[in-house]
Amino acid sequence: MKALRISGDELSVQEIAKPLAEGESLVRVVKSGICNTDLEIARGYAGFNGTLGHEFVGVVENANSLLIGKRVVGEINAGCGKCDRCVRGDARHCPERTVLGIHGRDGAHAEFLRLPEVNLIEVPKSVSDESAVFVEPLAAAFGITEQIQIGPEDKVAVIGDGKLGILCSRSLSLTTHDLTHIGKHRKKLDLTEKYGNVTGVLADDASALQKSFDIIIEASGSESGFNTALNLLKPRGKMVLKSTFHGSPRWDAARVVVDEITIVGSRCGRFAPALELLSTNAVEVKDLITDEIPLSRGVEAMKLAAEPGVMKVLLSN
Amino acid sequence: MKALRISGDELSVQEIAKPLAEGESLVRVVKSGICNTDLEIARGYAGFNGTLGHEFVGVVENANSLLIGKRVVGEINAGCGKCDRCVRGDARHCPERTVLGIHGRDGAHAEFLRLPEVNLIEVPKSVSDESAVFVEPLAAAFGITEQIQIGPEDKVAVIGDGKLGILCSRSLSLTTHDLTHIGKHRKKLDLTEKYGNVTGVLADDASALQKSFDIIIEASGSESGFNTALNLLKPRGKMVLKSTFHGSPRWDAARVVVDEITIVGSRCGRFAPALELLSTNAVEVKDLITDEIPLSRGVEAMKLAAEPGVMKVLLSN
Repeated sequence: MKALRISGDELSVQEIAKPLAEGESLVRVVKSGICNTDLEIARGYAGFNGTLGHEFVGVVENANSLLIGKRVVGEINAGCGKCDRCVRGDARHCPERTVLGIHGRDGAHAEFLRLPEVNLIEVPKSVSDESAVFVEPLAAAFGITEQIQIGPEDKVAVIGDGKLGILCSRSLSLTTHDLTHIGKHRKKLDLTEKYGNVTGVLADDASALQKSFDIIIEASGSESGFNTALNLLKPRGKMVLKSTFHGSPRWDAARVVVDEITIVGSRCGRFAPALELLSTNAVEVKDLITDEIPLSRGVEAMKLAAEPGVMKVLLSN
Repeated sequence: MKALRISGDELSVQEIAKPLAEGESLVRVVKSGICNTDLEIARGYAGFNGTLGHEFVGVVENANSLLIGKRVVGEINAGCGKCDRCVRGDARHCPERTVLGIHGRDGAHAEFLRLPEVNLIEVPKSVSDESAVFVEPLAAAFGITEQIQIGPEDKVAVIGDGKLGILCSRSLSLTTHDLTHIGKHRKKLDLTEKYGNVTGVLADDASALQKSFDIIIEASGSESGFNTALNLLKPRGKMVLKSTFHGSPRWDAARVVVDEITIVGSRCGRFAPALELLSTNAVEVKDLITDEIPLSRGVEAMKLAAEPGVMKVLLSN
């Protein structure tokens, strides 16, 4: 089968053996989505070698699965099943976990993938393939509401107008009446302002908003975004660190203490609530697709995804 | 009256005019305590010029006070009384606040000080002057329990074996059965181990405890302490940043996101619960006093307080 693979810093579409189920479920991938994390892994982050990709929709192929023939998406963390974390149902923090296309497990930019059956969740008919590919990042965005309480009166800001920032803004605008989206690109902020109660603000104009937010989602993944977030938070405000940024950014730790700010690291979310948001049309995602390209041209698709202004690029089989 | 004052980097005991009450309460200071923050301010942090000191016990002097003749301690933040924060009873985060001996208000290393009457709280007879001086730092330490929930089953560590670290360990050992105190000085860890369920661990041996704590209090104020705390936290663990550290420390932000760690900045606490801990002897503090020196020798006392191994130095009138 074809697979988009990284080896060192060498990215290529290769012919490799179709995976065996080996006690897990075999999924024929229909579409997969290119995430910024894929671009970072291709730049060497995490030292991963193998098939990239963790956003997908596919069809279960193995005969012994209860889901055979069903359209599914899949939670990307596969736990050991035995440790404290797994026993408590939280494979996301299993120390022995593998992560689809990120750590120790071949990913979704391929014709087939395998995942434990427990990770798979059926996609309702009302959700198209194009939308279903967004379940993983939308779950990550909406998962914020499971980590911190956001009330309708809270003044909330999202920093970063990339795909993840826009999914945060679209999903959180369902729970607060006062959402500000701060970014560097007027065009992307226009995408976010299409949704009811969201105000887009260019990053250069954000300093006027100093100490005015109860909650800020940092989704830019940049040191400047982090420090902007600190400056815009009210005393006792909360920052959700949504985007993995690498290296060791500098920050004003004294400010965190004096203003008693809380910083909450946030990675993955649950898939079921995200599927619900898509199936009820509470969150729109299709307008975030820039292009769909066959898997065989995966290298070109990765290049396109890295270009400024490009939003989601899908790979199709 | 005499006062220990900082002007630029010039520290001296000076004769200055006794303050007028001017609508606030006038307090004759009996004893005051030298805090690490005093040492940092004397090194130029916060650009404060004036009388140092914010830990004290004194006697109310002004005739129109309901507390006249009473022994008191005092909350150090004085709010504007009008803003949202003050109206909600939280002068600690009033943007216009002054802070005793730290920001815009002369401090407690003097014969007299003034504070709004609402800041003062009477000291019960069962609490000695020496103990009462510890109310402010003990309130800061015990205030942690108002910011995060600590259950009896939580595995908790305190990093930093200075005065604040020891007060954190002594007060938190009342709420958890499993407290580890990590520091660089065996002698100071011995002070902390005197209390029931606390285990002292030298910082060099702490790496064996990787990812094993639910909650860590960072009270060392150092970049290395912060990064040790990150390494020792379980996934989804919580770090309380208790000690103000200056500059812009580097940190592994990706780790905070991947392990979904929460960092909570923590500054001041309420005085009433801390007074209660002292009056019931739930927390011992007197063994932390290294020396008591007359205010007139305040410069010498500050030098002593900065020496390695020295714990609390009191000034007396």
